[in-house]
Amino acid sequence: MRVLASRVAEHAGQNVELSGWVHRIRELGAISFVLLRDRSGIVQLVYEGKVEFTLESVVSVSGTVAENQKAPGGYEVQVAETVVMAPAEPDLPVTVNQDMSGVNLEAILDNRMLSLRNPRIRQIFTIQSAILKHFAAFLRSQDFTEIKTSKLIGTGTEGGTGLFTVEYFDAHVFLAQSPQFYKQAMVASGMERVFEIGAAYRAEKHDTPRHLNEYVSLDVEMGFIESERDLMDLEVGILKAVFNGVREEHADILSEWGATVPETEALDKIPRISHDDAKKIISDRLGRRVFEINPEGERVLCDWAVEEHGVEAVFVYGFPRKKRPFYTYPDGLKTASFDLLFRGLEITTGGRRINEYKMLQETLPKFGLTEEGLGDYMQIFRYGCPPHGGFAIGLERLTQKILDLPNVKEASLFPRDRKRVRP
Amino acid sequence: MRVLASRVAEHAGQNVELSGWVHRIRELGAISFVLLRDRSGIVQLVYEGKVEFTLESVVSVSGTVAENQKAPGGYEVQVAETVVMAPAEPDLPVTVNQDMSGVNLEAILDNRMLSLRNPRIRQIFTIQSAILKHFAAFLRSQDFTEIKTSKLIGTGTEGGTGLFTVEYFDAHVFLAQSPQFYKQAMVASGMERVFEIGAAYRAEKHDTPRHLNEYVSLDVEMGFIESERDLMDLEVGILKAVFNGVREEHADILSEWGATVPETEALDKIPRISHDDAKKIISDRLGRRVFEINPEGERVLCDWAVEEHGVEAVFVYGFPRKKRPFYTYPDGLKTASFDLLFRGLEITTGGRRINEYKMLQETLPKFGLTEEGLGDYMQIFRYGCPPHGGFAIGLERLTQKILDLPNVKEASLFPRDRKRVRP
Repeated sequence: MRVLASRVAEHAGQNVELSGWVHRIRELGAISFVLLRDRSGIVQLVYEGKVEFTLESVVSVSGTVAENQKAPGGYEVQVAETVVMAPAEPDLPVTVNQDMSGVNLEAILDNRMLSLRNPRIRQIFTIQSAILKHFAAFLRSQDFTEIKTSKLIGTGTEGGTGLFTVEYFDAHVFLAQSPQFYKQAMVASGMERVFEIGAAYRAEKHDTPRHLNEYVSLDVEMGFIESERDLMDLEVGILKAVFNGVREEHADILSEWGATVPETEALDKIPRISHDDAKKIISDRLGRRVFEINPEGERVLCDWAVEEHGVEAVFVYGFPRKKRPFYTYPDGLKTASFDLLFRGLEITTGGRRINEYKMLQETLPKFGLTEEGLGDYMQIFRYGCPPHGGFAIGLERLTQKILDLPNVKEASLFPRDRKRVRP
Repeated sequence: MRVLASRVAEHAGQNVELSGWVHRIRELGAISFVLLRDRSGIVQLVYEGKVEFTLESVVSVSGTVAENQKAPGGYEVQVAETVVMAPAEPDLPVTVNQDMSGVNLEAILDNRMLSLRNPRIRQIFTIQSAILKHFAAFLRSQDFTEIKTSKLIGTGTEGGTGLFTVEYFDAHVFLAQSPQFYKQAMVASGMERVFEIGAAYRAEKHDTPRHLNEYVSLDVEMGFIESERDLMDLEVGILKAVFNGVREEHADILSEWGATVPETEALDKIPRISHDDAKKIISDRLGRRVFEINPEGERVLCDWAVEEHGVEAVFVYGFPRKKRPFYTYPDGLKTASFDLLFRGLEITTGGRRINEYKMLQETLPKFGLTEEGLGDYMQIFRYGCPPHGGFAIGLERLTQKILDLPNVKEASLFPRDRKRVRP
């Protein structure tokens, strides 16, 4: 019966079986210390003489648990028997058992199959799994239904730019940039409250530390809202659930990374400022007038929120109409929309959507669109669609910001960018 | 404050606000009965005289809750005020408030935005959401980590046939048929136990009631297994959790559909038979010798399982090597692989994978593959990969079989087939 590395202390004095990867080998002549790594952690093995396996080999051992204050966790295993389940070749292209923060990101990604063995790199995805869990659990507690919609679409939701083309039998279709139309359809179907966790694609040529061409979108859409404020309230609820869940379940990882997540009390204080006011704050702080909110401005606004409101996030609402997609509910020259900036980065875009058929018909020509061009989408509104809105959180960006990763690609297991389609 | 239709009884004698869709209108001269539908259910509204809205319009009403044994749920609302939030055009392309089981599936799918309003059709996806929840919750309880891997890949996992091509900037890539290589990589990374819920694509031209070109794959992969029996045990655990969850949370839907899910005791009795024995059973029952297990054979085997073991499912193991992908762990001329058949349909394919580098090197030429051709995949094994295996459950097929839907497309919100890429 296999025992996990993290549970060895519970078996002091007993014989145990362990399985895992050879993390480190230290040979001291008469004795060798080996660190064995499994999904739960690391345990020290003690051998007489030298060992006959290589780093990263998968081994199964049996031996006796003994106390040793100098060993990780305070216990070690004096090995009686070792089976090499899968030997590793001796020359590793990247070093797994050392701090990889100095290693070039391209080298880490080129050797992704191996670099993911680095415990610290793997922790990024343990956090990500917890985000997925608590995002879904909170929404389910609020009567949301999880949906799965097609990623193969006939037309783009944002007007047709930035789409990847797929050869689909004798036709051409596109990879969805978002489940926007479908989540609206599901609100109008009577589900009212839906969420989707799925891939989203942007065929944009930018190569920045904040962009991915394929990412995981945490999408939410809710019917019968009174205004976009209901959506901001909902997002605060999600963030509380996610941050509290990550803190409670993975305090060890946060501590190892020197990372923190905002407390509930702080999240209750997230300021909500208009796009115009946001530009003023940025202009004041930079000492020059800005006309839009660029990445530098996003960082300035988050610094302002920390200093003035004690929280590392800020909602910006009231974006101008020309900066938002056609389906955004208008409010004069502005829109009933918002972004959430967190730790200097936009992690959410959302807003109320146009739900009135006539308003949508009047809006389309202003965006160069036609009812025929939008096809099935119009059917949602022709037959009664309630007031609604929603938003999307970028999973990788949220992960990135929790752990303060320099590049969002580090928060994607197998990132895709303009040049990278492997591994 | 809005009250949901399902909670009206709690407000007897009180004034309430309700919002939803106009499900049915019955005008009796001096009085009109209107059924209002929201996400929770249906409630009867009573109006004096005629009403001035159309079916499927979204309305918000206020009125007094009164007992009426003849109304759905035993209560109705005598309406004082009505606001039409979004009027519906009078001519509905499909009828929402009637049994749609007689309507042609193509018509239902052509008008998907509207047909999803039919409560019975929408229930399919309430069940699907519950499957997603309990699949993930059970695996998390067993120390599995949820992963999200790229769907844009350089080469196919099953040998390059049946792939959709994507124009990716100046290159061509493919839509992933499964996360097979990536979930294996994550086992070898040290996560050991992973699951992924994601889209999978098959560019196959078949148009059958059991195939989709895009589907949701519930993927599982586990390290340090002793044999494929560990995987079958794990799948039984998943099915227990999913079926019990669906039964507890949606007994009303199951009852309305006349559907049942297997009990825990039945799932413990799922027989495990070899591929050879399966063919014998089918041959005996059909009165002619069969040489492979086709859809008819799958139905025969499930009938056999019901009669002989009292359960509507059967594991078939030991598939011949030539019927399984190259990465399947060999066992002589057979493989350490299995299918799970449920109610006459294969809903899972799984098995142990080759984890030994040398064995994989020796296997590749037999399948016309080269180490170079597989690229990064080989890195998983070159540096120590534990014994492991996994399986995938088709979400739509499982949904289909729970509700006994004639066609798997009915269990996909926006299905894609050779001819259909809309809505």
